[in-house]
Amino acid sequence: MTEKSKIGTFLFKSESYLADFRGQMTLPMLGNYLLEVASRHAAERGFGYNEMTERNTAWVLSRLAIEIEEYPRMDDEFYIKTWVEEVNKLFTTRCFEILSKEEKILGYARSVWAAIDIETRKPTILDRERLKEYISDKECPIDNPGKILAIEEESGFTSYIVKYSDLDINGHLNSIKYIEHLLDLFDISMFEKSQINRFEIAYMAEGRFGMELNLYNKEIKENQYNMAITNNNKAICRASVRWTK
Amino acid sequence: MTEKSKIGTFLFKSESYLADFRGQMTLPMLGNYLLEVASRHAAERGFGYNEMTERNTAWVLSRLAIEIEEYPRMDDEFYIKTWVEEVNKLFTTRCFEILSKEEKILGYARSVWAAIDIETRKPTILDRERLKEYISDKECPIDNPGKILAIEEESGFTSYIVKYSDLDINGHLNSIKYIEHLLDLFDISMFEKSQINRFEIAYMAEGRFGMELNLYNKEIKENQYNMAITNNNKAICRASVRWTK
Repeated sequence: MTEKSKIGTFLFKSESYLADFRGQMTLPMLGNYLLEVASRHAAERGFGYNEMTERNTAWVLSRLAIEIEEYPRMDDEFYIKTWVEEVNKLFTTRCFEILSKEEKILGYARSVWAAIDIETRKPTILDRERLKEYISDKECPIDNPGKILAIEEESGFTSYIVKYSDLDINGHLNSIKYIEHLLDLFDISMFEKSQINRFEIAYMAEGRFGMELNLYNKEIKENQYNMAITNNNKAICRASVRWTK
Repeated sequence: MTEKSKIGTFLFKSESYLADFRGQMTLPMLGNYLLEVASRHAAERGFGYNEMTERNTAWVLSRLAIEIEEYPRMDDEFYIKTWVEEVNKLFTTRCFEILSKEEKILGYARSVWAAIDIETRKPTILDRERLKEYISDKECPIDNPGKILAIEEESGFTSYIVKYSDLDINGHLNSIKYIEHLLDLFDISMFEKSQINRFEIAYMAEGRFGMELNLYNKEIKENQYNMAITNNNKAICRASVRWTK
């Protein structure tokens, strides 16, 4: 297999009706595009949603880290490249490179996925031999998503109840909606004077319709915030955000 | 000008990551596509965002009615056609037809727009002569958006504070987010057993970051609900929803 067919390249246009008040793409919207290219890249190589369903399994996003220097602006065309970096017994790592139309590198992302059994919702052992064929040695020069320290006991919280618009096709809180609700904890002044330079999230449990969530946010050092969402005092995700001027 | 160039036709694919728990496109997402084709159709004919900005004006959506028999499902391709139906002194009416890839009609929509002065936020007089060139007599066989009776005094409410993810490029509550927050007032069981067959909304004032909103919903007859959003006891929009089994 050539390097080229291991790496998928996808062209998008940043639609104006999805831009934020600064006229640029939001981080959750960028996350949507990353999941979309992950899904298409996998489907084109025979390990997408349909093939996984046939084996009674589904991909579940476990961790995601995004580092971005410059966000696409409204009406900009941009590329996302994606490739498989690593395959272990239970997890596979997929990377992304985000580029302008002129192929200037805007940022990178790294995601960690498990395959779960649809009935039991427990992890299954990956088909390493088959997935390994697609591993590319293209570089993804950002830190791995790592351990995020809990801040729930040191911070106030905002409550939220999971609604219809939050649900994905499995009836669970959509992976990107975790991010949207967390970023909504920041005051508008943060978005006016700074940019999110790195965002990472660890998904720990599934949210469901009507679930009562508590959302936490704490500045742990200058421009660096740890966040969490809990249900019944148990974290369903933790996240970390680094802002730059 | 031929009929063909008056009517714009746009092809989309309903992305799986935007599907709801039933695997179908949400009504707010359909609304996003309608605004997108309105914007593109106008830009291609010289009265889009940029041309309006040059004259210190902007299009503002005043009313929207959507009637849909069948929603596109995830991964479906579908068409939206759009055309100008009418131009008055202060308002212009734009219609939409939504079709499957096989050109089966799925639904229609009708929208009413005003052009406001960017500084004063007051309506301006439309360039009727120029806009009239684009009027098409293609039929849009659904009722006009009409007067929606207030139900705020007869109903409980849910509170909501406008957040970063709600804002559009003008820093106002995004037109589609009004719809998303209103539909989130319905219990999941409504979406499980029925579909929204007609939705209409009248926009009355702009929402801004941090604004405290009250959201109201009242069944006025079987399967028909009137809704409203208020700020400081003044409605900023009213809506009406008809469900079918």
